[in-house]
Amino acid sequence: MSDKKSKKPHKLKARLPRGFTDRTASDIRATDEMVAKIRGVFERYGFDPVETPAFEYTDALGKFLPDQDRPNEGVFSLQDDDEQWMSLRYDLTAPLARHVAQNINAIALPYRTYRQGWVFRNEKPGPGRFRQFMQFDADTVGAPGVQADAEMAMMMADTMEALGIKRGDYVIRVNNRKVLDGVMEAIGLGGEENAGKRLTVLRAIDKLDKFSPNDVLLLLTTGRWDGGKQGVGDFTEGAGLAANVAENVLGFILDGRFQVESRAGLMEGGKGHTASFTSPVSSAVGGDLFDNRSVHAGVQELANIQQSCRASGYGPDRIRIDPSVVRGLEYYTGPVYEAELLFDVVNEKGETVQFGSVGGGGRYDGLVKRFTGQDVPATGFSIGVSRLMTALKNLGKLGTDDMVAPVLVTVMDGGTEALGRYQKMTQDLREAGIRAEMYQGNWKKFGNQLRYADRRGCPIAIIQGSDEREKGIVQIKDMIEGRKEAAAIESNEEYRAARPGQFEVAEGDLVAEVTKLLAAQAENT
Amino acid sequence: MSDKKSKKPHKLKARLPRGFTDRTASDIRATDEMVAKIRGVFERYGFDPVETPAFEYTDALGKFLPDQDRPNEGVFSLQDDDEQWMSLRYDLTAPLARHVAQNINAIALPYRTYRQGWVFRNEKPGPGRFRQFMQFDADTVGAPGVQADAEMAMMMADTMEALGIKRGDYVIRVNNRKVLDGVMEAIGLGGEENAGKRLTVLRAIDKLDKFSPNDVLLLLTTGRWDGGKQGVGDFTEGAGLAANVAENVLGFILDGRFQVESRAGLMEGGKGHTASFTSPVSSAVGGDLFDNRSVHAGVQELANIQQSCRASGYGPDRIRIDPSVVRGLEYYTGPVYEAELLFDVVNEKGETVQFGSVGGGGRYDGLVKRFTGQDVPATGFSIGVSRLMTALKNLGKLGTDDMVAPVLVTVMDGGTEALGRYQKMTQDLREAGIRAEMYQGNWKKFGNQLRYADRRGCPIAIIQGSDEREKGIVQIKDMIEGRKEAAAIESNEEYRAARPGQFEVAEGDLVAEVTKLLAAQAENT
Repeated sequence: MSDKKSKKPHKLKARLPRGFTDRTASDIRATDEMVAKIRGVFERYGFDPVETPAFEYTDALGKFLPDQDRPNEGVFSLQDDDEQWMSLRYDLTAPLARHVAQNINAIALPYRTYRQGWVFRNEKPGPGRFRQFMQFDADTVGAPGVQADAEMAMMMADTMEALGIKRGDYVIRVNNRKVLDGVMEAIGLGGEENAGKRLTVLRAIDKLDKFSPNDVLLLLTTGRWDGGKQGVGDFTEGAGLAANVAENVLGFILDGRFQVESRAGLMEGGKGHTASFTSPVSSAVGGDLFDNRSVHAGVQELANIQQSCRASGYGPDRIRIDPSVVRGLEYYTGPVYEAELLFDVVNEKGETVQFGSVGGGGRYDGLVKRFTGQDVPATGFSIGVSRLMTALKNLGKLGTDDMVAPVLVTVMDGGTEALGRYQKMTQDLREAGIRAEMYQGNWKKFGNQLRYADRRGCPIAIIQGSDEREKGIVQIKDMIEGRKEAAAIESNEEYRAARPGQFEVAEGDLVAEVTKLLAAQAENT
Repeated sequence: MSDKKSKKPHKLKARLPRGFTDRTASDIRATDEMVAKIRGVFERYGFDPVETPAFEYTDALGKFLPDQDRPNEGVFSLQDDDEQWMSLRYDLTAPLARHVAQNINAIALPYRTYRQGWVFRNEKPGPGRFRQFMQFDADTVGAPGVQADAEMAMMMADTMEALGIKRGDYVIRVNNRKVLDGVMEAIGLGGEENAGKRLTVLRAIDKLDKFSPNDVLLLLTTGRWDGGKQGVGDFTEGAGLAANVAENVLGFILDGRFQVESRAGLMEGGKGHTASFTSPVSSAVGGDLFDNRSVHAGVQELANIQQSCRASGYGPDRIRIDPSVVRGLEYYTGPVYEAELLFDVVNEKGETVQFGSVGGGGRYDGLVKRFTGQDVPATGFSIGVSRLMTALKNLGKLGTDDMVAPVLVTVMDGGTEALGRYQKMTQDLREAGIRAEMYQGNWKKFGNQLRYADRRGCPIAIIQGSDEREKGIVQIKDMIEGRKEAAAIESNEEYRAARPGQFEVAEGDLVAEVTKLLAAQAENT
């Protein structure tokens, strides 16, 4: 540390807790624009807003943390005055289940609602990975039929298009946890006692969108080294399946048996991994997985969803049945669905990859029952707002902040009376609906005022010194034109003489002239 | 407990932590409408949005809790993995100071921003008093002159009017902490060591909008019993001022000396308490308070603010200098201002009272300096969104939820193919921009579907059984007309025969006919 530094008085350091971030004006405006479009689609589908607060009792949230092996780690929790544990919500689904259970007698089922809000995860932050982020959810509670799931898939597809993502750049992939659960059962991983191992297997399958089938095979069996070979990079524990069992499972997911066996021609194109899966499938282990009752029921439901979507004109280019969709959450009990963006982006490692998931959901028939003891079937999905915004920026659909900066009324005279006059000009502009502000910094350095107008992107500056005041005029400085003209001017003297982009008008014409100039500027952009 | 109850299996209780609440659709829509209007005013004044996250390091928030004698109690805090204490923000000002300090080199001063968000107070909840509530703030950072404070007062006035609160139903009251601080100095309560006692005195003065001057006199001296006499109700400790000192202070605030002594005629009408203040003023104690240098400077600033407001056409009916305004927060260093609603409401005790404050703020020149070591003068205010919403509902300016409920496509046949057809009708309506939903509950009890449509307020129900299907028609049920006609029908048989408000149309005309009917319904309301 330099001497100079160590001599500074002790000061508080201004910093944010790790994993939290401030939001800029353009981020906020882009989010608002996006959220308004999403809301429009949800309202059209007959959903109404309902919101819950940031806190829930920890027991009400339950042990349903996604991608988290140790339940209840990963949430922010604290004890209330009466020693009860409260947690900040980690998603918007568990609080909705509490809300429905608490108001079950007042609520008319089916209950169709949407909500937007911040959720919190007490996890290790990383690049683009925050501990507070925004979700936008829609749920139908009290809907036993898979038509409700089909509707969710269609609504997700419509949402993507409402945001300007064109057909072919997205797909809603649909699977059914009953199929996956049946597969687990068939290979001897049914029952409460295998819940942990089951989740590990499902998460391995879920990695098919990131890893090669051979890597997933490692995750299903002995584990996988990040670096590609023993001892290189981090090690992820495997699920411990026997090699032939793992191959049977993976084969079922990948090799199109699904398609062959299903009357509905369900497998409508996987993720293109089949070709790169090199191990032969041993159908002996776990038996013929499709014979399992749960698998069978799940496939039938998928056929119904498919038919419902097709009847409404949603083809496989928009909604596609795909047996490799998992969705990490433990609480899903039936159909699961995921909105995936198909266009390419370059990731942090410089690799070209598909953008991937921007949201998803599924059926969670057991969540409300935890409270009420009665079946309350429900289905819904969640959109990751920040992630979707990144995608839209990539597509050039957002992020151009088209809010015009305010007109700056500069201050040439700091006397109270003069300040009152500048303030009055500012108010006159505002009353005409024009964004305007009087310079509120130290007025004595006029250069600072113009620099401020420049940095802020002000389209126009208003100037009135005592000379102009006496003559009853004001100077209007076209900051946009001025920047162009100034670029061609070489000396300070020349600049002062030319006063680029500047003209004078009668004080009484100020509002009219500014209105005219703003309109002209808007036409030229 | 009854036998029946005790036999129920153990279930989780669905309940919210104390002091937190769910938001209904009409609350959310009303808030959105209100917030959009506020945002409109702030944008016109040249403010841009900036937001900070829910958490800050506890030391960054500082000891600036309002109305809280024990600093740092009253916030929700927890320790991060690395043992650093983090707190949920209790207002939007302290986080803004941190944000500015952290980005001081990138930010162009003056920095004019607004933000809306949830804040959290770990306090005892009460009726209408929640531990999570919404604030909407605007701040100018890097503005040394009181013109910035005047602008804030004008912006608050404009905001009230933009929300439909008419002139005369609100007033922005403005005072200066320098005046109050000078008074404290004059009576020997200057300096760090008297900070606690000073705050007690200020809070007593602040109670002038709720209590009589005699009650405030008790708070300034020996303390006050809630019930009006010794031993009745709760006891609030007094500030311990000598009686004649307290009378001098209160007299200064109330008796118009302010007005007499000030060249600007500052005291523009107090709160009407003067008449009911029965003690004689002893001017000997504390001396002539107006002679104090800080009082003098404060009054001069108030005169400037007044002049600036008047120059822009804001009269004392909108912005009024009032020496009894305190604002509880410790960090204010200059002008303070408060938006007060003047119309009467009935409080929880059945008393008729003025609605009172819906927001306020002031100058806080020291907040950013805590981090940077340099002066960064700033001023801003906060609107209590929920409280303002209550006020607007009282005025009938909000709370009529004019969103039309969706058209319900009922289900008469649960076969997959039929469901596909109902879904298609629903999608056709949506594509025409009509809110619509297919019934997603158990379709078998048709009565439940119409009851659902009724409870949900659906304007129209669509019905197609197999008969209608064969004929290529659908039934359109006008739920609004139907309710009227049904009221006149006496028997079930008659009802079935009449099918009130129901008519059939060709399937191909569905969208056109529904559009027509919705338009007709809209005209009749």
